[in-house]
Amino acid sequence: MSFSFDIESTAGSARAGVFSTPHGPVETPAFMPVGTLATVKALDPEDLVRMGASMILSNAYHLHLRPGDDVVREMGGLHRFMQWERPILTDSGGFQVFSLAQLRTINEEGVEFQSHIDGSSRFFTPESVMQIERNLGADVIMQFDHVIPGQSDEGTARDASDRSIRWLARCLAEVQRLEAGSGTGEEGSGPREEVSRSNPRNRANRQALFPIVQGGIHAHLRREAAEAIRSMNDWPGFGIGGLSVGEEKDAMYEMLEVVDDALPETHPRYLMGVGFPEDLIEGIRRGVDLFDCVAPTRMGRNGAVFTRDGRLNIKRTEYRTDPKPLDPDCDCAACTRFSRAYIRHLFVSDEILGLRLLSLHNVHFLLSLARGARQSILNGNLEQWSRDWLARYRMTSPQPV
Amino acid sequence: MSFSFDIESTAGSARAGVFSTPHGPVETPAFMPVGTLATVKALDPEDLVRMGASMILSNAYHLHLRPGDDVVREMGGLHRFMQWERPILTDSGGFQVFSLAQLRTINEEGVEFQSHIDGSSRFFTPESVMQIERNLGADVIMQFDHVIPGQSDEGTARDASDRSIRWLARCLAEVQRLEAGSGTGEEGSGPREEVSRSNPRNRANRQALFPIVQGGIHAHLRREAAEAIRSMNDWPGFGIGGLSVGEEKDAMYEMLEVVDDALPETHPRYLMGVGFPEDLIEGIRRGVDLFDCVAPTRMGRNGAVFTRDGRLNIKRTEYRTDPKPLDPDCDCAACTRFSRAYIRHLFVSDEILGLRLLSLHNVHFLLSLARGARQSILNGNLEQWSRDWLARYRMTSPQPV
Repeated sequence: MSFSFDIESTAGSARAGVFSTPHGPVETPAFMPVGTLATVKALDPEDLVRMGASMILSNAYHLHLRPGDDVVREMGGLHRFMQWERPILTDSGGFQVFSLAQLRTINEEGVEFQSHIDGSSRFFTPESVMQIERNLGADVIMQFDHVIPGQSDEGTARDASDRSIRWLARCLAEVQRLEAGSGTGEEGSGPREEVSRSNPRNRANRQALFPIVQGGIHAHLRREAAEAIRSMNDWPGFGIGGLSVGEEKDAMYEMLEVVDDALPETHPRYLMGVGFPEDLIEGIRRGVDLFDCVAPTRMGRNGAVFTRDGRLNIKRTEYRTDPKPLDPDCDCAACTRFSRAYIRHLFVSDEILGLRLLSLHNVHFLLSLARGARQSILNGNLEQWSRDWLARYRMTSPQPV
Repeated sequence: MSFSFDIESTAGSARAGVFSTPHGPVETPAFMPVGTLATVKALDPEDLVRMGASMILSNAYHLHLRPGDDVVREMGGLHRFMQWERPILTDSGGFQVFSLAQLRTINEEGVEFQSHIDGSSRFFTPESVMQIERNLGADVIMQFDHVIPGQSDEGTARDASDRSIRWLARCLAEVQRLEAGSGTGEEGSGPREEVSRSNPRNRANRQALFPIVQGGIHAHLRREAAEAIRSMNDWPGFGIGGLSVGEEKDAMYEMLEVVDDALPETHPRYLMGVGFPEDLIEGIRRGVDLFDCVAPTRMGRNGAVFTRDGRLNIKRTEYRTDPKPLDPDCDCAACTRFSRAYIRHLFVSDEILGLRLLSLHNVHFLLSLARGARQSILNGNLEQWSRDWLARYRMTSPQPV
């Protein structure tokens, strides 16, 4: 088995573990920086290695449209294409089809939609998405699912959750079909990586398919979904979808507790699209192992900065001659070198280095927060650490960012 | 003396030398990357160190407007502000006042103009520009000069050149006044660098003022200007201005030969704003030691790439699945890692990493070209090396970029 999850220590529902993949280990809890289009915006892969990122996320919908998953496959798969030798997870595009694309028609077979780039008509099915994700060649691939707004009523939520489960069965069948094909020597059915060429038998477990537990903010739907999914297969890990999409924070935390009870303790759980500092800590306390969010890079591009004492916006005039680093407690490559005054100047002058430094700092901040939480689980003081961390973070009234 | 120039070897008019500054040596011939606003666009100072840049250029006009030279001085001077510990040269703003700014009024006292950013009215004099450049604290500061279009007639060229020479005398007097002030313990008259605080007597030679030889494309005006400038002071080096501003290439080369004869062989010469590969080689053969140009970063942002076999534009469809690096003969941090296909994808998708990689490659290309020329001077084969280099570079018909 190329994938495994070893738990080193627990603290209540929280766990410090190691998720092993064909491209190396992921120490959990972990924050996964988002590289939507095969690049974490404004950063160099080298930056990410230096700040200790392990698994990063990329996106099947976006890469299918640009440059095309066929191109990525021809270039040797996503790892080689973007020069990232550590683990990668690809999201299936479910979220994008339902949030970015226009003129959607959903039926049991799949979703017809128009590309947000050129308006061209596309049709995604569970099978075609599995083919796309296989072409990309990430270590973890997410199922194609039906994503709905966070406050949807029970009927809508049940309908989407049930469809996602039926689509999961088709995803699994398609992955098995593709793997069987590659196992019998079928040529060119996956990225042309050297590792897979030299040892074709490893290919069967080269990609881990994660199901996604849906069910909106309805506890019994979440429980039913988890149970149905578990009965279907011995999954290498579980996605938790449809949260942080407009519902109340408390509803999200409640759903996490429900799912924590309903999923096996032995497997990694990935809370999709969630990654603000508070949510990371609350999620970890409720048994979540993996997180991702575009916030650190998107916020960075707007001048917003995470600090241990809350957020600040670097564009404010008060930083014009501020010699301090963005966050005096941070050891990232921006904070160890540059003043707020300099970064503000870059930002106000629309200089690219400004975007890079803020993105670098914000991503480092979340990676380092997840590492801090992991260490506190190992030390047996997660609860105290979380309280202290959040108290300090919230003490300063947040500035308008 | 904090500044010196040692020539190691010559080949005709070309020289391999070392220009020493308070922030370290510059091996010449050298290309200086341009960091207009205290950042070389799309690059991190670390990138520049790794590709072996020594002296970089920044701009008094731009930094006076944003963030303000007073801010830079308050933050410890340009080196500390932008975290560049190697030499810096600041251009005086002459070129920008005459090219970017609007509604100029020129008289003997100085130039009144409107900021290209907010339209605010500003007045530059030789004295005020020296104060700005002192606040910035670069190693080499250029005189304030009167810049004219490349094909100006003799009367206009003579008028501007004569005025530049009169302004040079005022620049020199102002620099001497400012230095005398700092030598007698005047507080706060320069960047608050630790080195200058701990040893104030070093400050007198902390900045080298370079005059600028003007005279358009009129050989006798260039000769007269060089002579007048030389008779005024023992300068640490010379700028050659008003070239590559619209005149014919041959006229530029002829002027370089005239100036080569008219300037002392013992001092460094800086050809302002010139830096395409052919011009670098032709300039070096005519005795130029220092170059700068925004082309490598500006071109990079448009998708244009220097290669040993001529230019290419990465946006072209033919690179969609091209696994080769930008330039197979290049050892920069873009070429040793990424394919043309990947960089094209980044570029087409407006990803910042694409700008970074192309800028990185193009700047590296010119730094490395200057190093190659230097080595060939030391090896005694500059002529052969130049011929071979240019023949290969020009062999491929240039693509439309």
